Amino acid sequence: MPSSSLVLSRRDLDFLLHEWLDVGSLTTRDRFTEHSRETFDAVLDLAEQVATEHFAPHNRLADENEPRMVDGRVVQIPEVGRALDVFARTGLMAGTFDEEFGGMQLPQTVGQAVLAWFQAANIGTSAYPFLTMANARLLLAHGSREQIDTFVAPMVEGRWFGTMALSEPQAGSSLADITTRAERQDDGSYRLTGNKMWISAGDHELTENIVHLVLAKVPGGPAGVKGISLFVVPKFLVGDDGALGERNDVVLAGLNHKMGYRGTTNTLLNFGEGVHTPGGRAGAVGYLVGEENRGLTYMFHMMNEARIGVGVGASVLGYTGYLHALEYARTRTQGRPAGAKDPASPMVPIIEHTDVRRMLLAAKSYVEGGLALGLYCARLVDEEQTAPTTEERERAHLLLDTLTPIAKAWPSQWGPAANDLAIQVHGGYGYTRDYPVEQFYRDNRLNPIHEGTQGIQSLDLLGRKVVQQGGAGLRLLTETISAATRRASGTEWAGLAADLDAAVGRLGAVTATLWGTGDPDLALANSHVYLEAAGHVVVAWLWLEQALATGEGTGSFYEGKRAAARWFWRSELPRTGPQFDLLESLDRTVLDTPADVL
Amino acid sequence: MPSSSLVLSRRDLDFLLHEWLDVGSLTTRDRFTEHSRETFDAVLDLAEQVATEHFAPHNRLADENEPRMVDGRVVQIPEVGRALDVFARTGLMAGTFDEEFGGMQLPQTVGQAVLAWFQAANIGTSAYPFLTMANARLLLAHGSREQIDTFVAPMVEGRWFGTMALSEPQAGSSLADITTRAERQDDGSYRLTGNKMWISAGDHELTENIVHLVLAKVPGGPAGVKGISLFVVPKFLVGDDGALGERNDVVLAGLNHKMGYRGTTNTLLNFGEGVHTPGGRAGAVGYLVGEENRGLTYMFHMMNEARIGVGVGASVLGYTGYLHALEYARTRTQGRPAGAKDPASPMVPIIEHTDVRRMLLAAKSYVEGGLALGLYCARLVDEEQTAPTTEERERAHLLLDTLTPIAKAWPSQWGPAANDLAIQVHGGYGYTRDYPVEQFYRDNRLNPIHEGTQGIQSLDLLGRKVVQQGGAGLRLLTETISAATRRASGTEWAGLAADLDAAVGRLGAVTATLWGTGDPDLALANSHVYLEAAGHVVVAWLWLEQALATGEGTGSFYEGKRAAARWFWRSELPRTGPQFDLLESLDRTVLDTPADVL
Repeated sequence: MPSSSLVLSRRDLDFLLHEWLDVGSLTTRDRFTEHSRETFDAVLDLAEQVATEHFAPHNRLADENEPRMVDGRVVQIPEVGRALDVFARTGLMAGTFDEEFGGMQLPQTVGQAVLAWFQAANIGTSAYPFLTMANARLLLAHGSREQIDTFVAPMVEGRWFGTMALSEPQAGSSLADITTRAERQDDGSYRLTGNKMWISAGDHELTENIVHLVLAKVPGGPAGVKGISLFVVPKFLVGDDGALGERNDVVLAGLNHKMGYRGTTNTLLNFGEGVHTPGGRAGAVGYLVGEENRGLTYMFHMMNEARIGVGVGASVLGYTGYLHALEYARTRTQGRPAGAKDPASPMVPIIEHTDVRRMLLAAKSYVEGGLALGLYCARLVDEEQTAPTTEERERAHLLLDTLTPIAKAWPSQWGPAANDLAIQVHGGYGYTRDYPVEQFYRDNRLNPIHEGTQGIQSLDLLGRKVVQQGGAGLRLLTETISAATRRASGTEWAGLAADLDAAVGRLGAVTATLWGTGDPDLALANSHVYLEAAGHVVVAWLWLEQALATGEGTGSFYEGKRAAARWFWRSELPRTGPQFDLLESLDRTVLDTPADVL
Repeated sequence: MPSSSLVLSRRDLDFLLHEWLDVGSLTTRDRFTEHSRETFDAVLDLAEQVATEHFAPHNRLADENEPRMVDGRVVQIPEVGRALDVFARTGLMAGTFDEEFGGMQLPQTVGQAVLAWFQAANIGTSAYPFLTMANARLLLAHGSREQIDTFVAPMVEGRWFGTMALSEPQAGSSLADITTRAERQDDGSYRLTGNKMWISAGDHELTENIVHLVLAKVPGGPAGVKGISLFVVPKFLVGDDGALGERNDVVLAGLNHKMGYRGTTNTLLNFGEGVHTPGGRAGAVGYLVGEENRGLTYMFHMMNEARIGVGVGASVLGYTGYLHALEYARTRTQGRPAGAKDPASPMVPIIEHTDVRRMLLAAKSYVEGGLALGLYCARLVDEEQTAPTTEERERAHLLLDTLTPIAKAWPSQWGPAANDLAIQVHGGYGYTRDYPVEQFYRDNRLNPIHEGTQGIQSLDLLGRKVVQQGGAGLRLLTETISAATRRASGTEWAGLAADLDAAVGRLGAVTATLWGTGDPDLALANSHVYLEAAGHVVVAWLWLEQALATGEGTGSFYEGKRAAARWFWRSELPRTGPQFDLLESLDRTVLDTPADVL
């Protein structure tokens, strides 16, 4: 069994949660009065233990034995189901949910840290409950009382799992083009027909029922995204008493075979093919969530949560890779220090070689920076929901909304970079399947793709988030960062703060320049470099926050935080210089390159 | 069968070889007088055809069915052996070798382009003959006449394959620490005992014999690298008549299971375990190459060639990924252009989206830039060997020597970056094993590791190449680049040339600053960022060369070259700014970060 210290760093989580984000202060709020540092610690202890003992041990096995389709059913290794049974029994499934729905009413910040343990230990197995939570949360927000009673309770208990069925073979990033149809029936239900692609956890035998949340179009509705509605489509119909009834007309049409993330079944589902005939005829029975044509709005509510979750997953997959590389670098001996000329002198642990420390320091700055970003966003969710005043809640919402594309995209770029470095630290061994770092690398490659590609996030940031409400989101971000740089005045971090202030200034300036052209095509042709620069500015800020939070602390943990902050200041933040230069120049290279010359 | 246009671009090769590197001019030299544009074209046609028809089709199959060890023997899919039989019959194995040894006496520049087809089509299968060529070339340079007659001829004919056996489980980058021993025998031969790790093509049933070139230490010799000798150790001993004799005491102890590059067996070999007893006793029979204790010098002769080959392999693996992504982007429809508001308008090929073109343009600049670098180095080999004057040959040697760590490391960093982008262009499909881009990504991840890691290359560049001979290598590189920037004067590329001149100036300045400290530890702690910056300067220069070589050419090919040159100028070269700033500041972050705080 792997040591929990190779999965994730509890010391770092404690630092982030308590020394920086002060989650203890949340316990004064009505929603969290039942909680205390002790209850937070207890739930984190539990997560660490269950993730290490039940999720991590089969991570490689699940990779090597991906789910198969046999006679139309999914066959996968039994360890996945056993781990999920343990998980369900912990009650963590509904950690942050209201007590009314069987939840612990934990702050989102703590809940996100809890989930991080499972993502780090086994991203493939953890996807089943995480999708279920997102599904349940969406139904709680937008479903009817009956839908909540019927579907949410069994999901919170871990008896049923849920999915999100958005994409179709011909419509991934372009949801406007989905063709799944939902026809209204006399009894108020709908019948769905169509094919859904990339549905994670779309079929399996882990639970007795599966609750699909499906995007579809009701005939006669508006074209494009404005005609998308959301439906609950269970694998088995459910009676008024909650008992399972007929098999719905939802059929597993195939499994996707991925490079990584293999423990999660990823499916092609056919709705309404007539393979099953609920009520005596073909068509998948679905129940409208909320109102017709508002499906995408509801889904986006969930997607923002999912995007932060993807970002945290990308960070902690990088994190566990970093911890494995660190362990390897401390124990593997090879060569001698640069100055040692005597070939008979003993070999040293490779961490003594500066280039190995460079790789570890870079990786540390990425994964701890990414995790800080994810937990900061979770803290904003808590503020958004429980801050004392409306104004505070609205500010939290606005800042969170602005940061979300960065919270998804930045870790999805730099978490994999940390995994790449973890392989490199291991040398040839890291390239073999005898060590786990190659799997982390493959697993993490999904994160820049799902829940909105990096390109989609860049359009969301530059095309929507920083311009909406007259640029209020960017102003708020700027103010928030400035508050931190002011606190750095007179400290050893004043230099970082000054560089950060300058970078934030440039971010504002290029935003104005890009939109000042009146040419959205030109602005958006530069959205990806804008996203990259904004992301590095944000994470540099979070490193300043962490550096300041180390206070007068002494010892290796605090020194490590300061070293990583210094690395990010010296080696990472300056990457933004040429990016801002390019943006300021209103570069037309991509826009003016016609497709036929590529 | 894949189209050859998805493997590699013949149009680009023709441009690089003829319009830029002017290989035709080599045919005036004594060594190449038998050749002409027509013979070069014929051999490239042959390579394209054989690579496409015999190597590419089993690339995925070999990945999915990696070699297994059954009863001590290697079992692999028959397609590998069949392709290699075809390859051997082409005579390409010895394309650049002397006619005396069955070669075609092709220029190295053309030979490298020939090999590139096979690397792009199937890196795993192509490794067998490529290692064999490197082995044969080393024996030709340093072996005895008898060794050449016995071992080289069957390798050139493709009847036997060769290996390079350097690393050991405890000694990879640190060859000083190998422990394989070679004891001198009365008959002049040696008996070897020890374990070798990571030996590609170390065992298989593809050929009737395998010729290992093995590094070992003769007892009593100097410690460290100065006591390393080189031996020929055949799998089967060879009689005076060339017939195979007894089985040598070399035993396959295991196969390594890699993330990619799976078609190539990668082995742990035990020498002298007594499993076989040639001559009636244990010990692997080996024959000294050259003199004792000079083994590493001989091996480095081969390693420089191998490093350029790895660089070209990394480039063309990226290249084939780029071509697949381009094809996908032209055919996959999704969404609408930024300005199109009507959701009922038809979807467009995704290449119409600027962010997709951005990814393709970046990838194009990496892979065509990397290939240009590899072929430029090959051209230097031709100059080194056949230029009219000693001075020209020495200059070519010096420039090649200086560029070699960059020619290995730069494509090993940016080729995989192109593969990463190729996955991203494919979206979710690119993450599945139904499309080839995920395999290219896994395959290419080996290249920053083998034949000297990126860290090793950075130490070679900063610690050796740019300082040896009083810095003559860097001066020559600077002069060579300056000659190109002068030619750009008055052209549309003057801006790129000016930025390049400035960057080259900074490269010289930081080299002086780093070594001016008198503190090698501090200088070398920054070697990796130095390597990255130097690499981008070199490739920016090669993009200037290519841009200039487009001349007055019109049409999409030339426009594409210019677009990629512009991309590299605008988006890539500026990355070096902060890198030079960091180097100039004599950054101590890594050096001063102790191991225990990580």
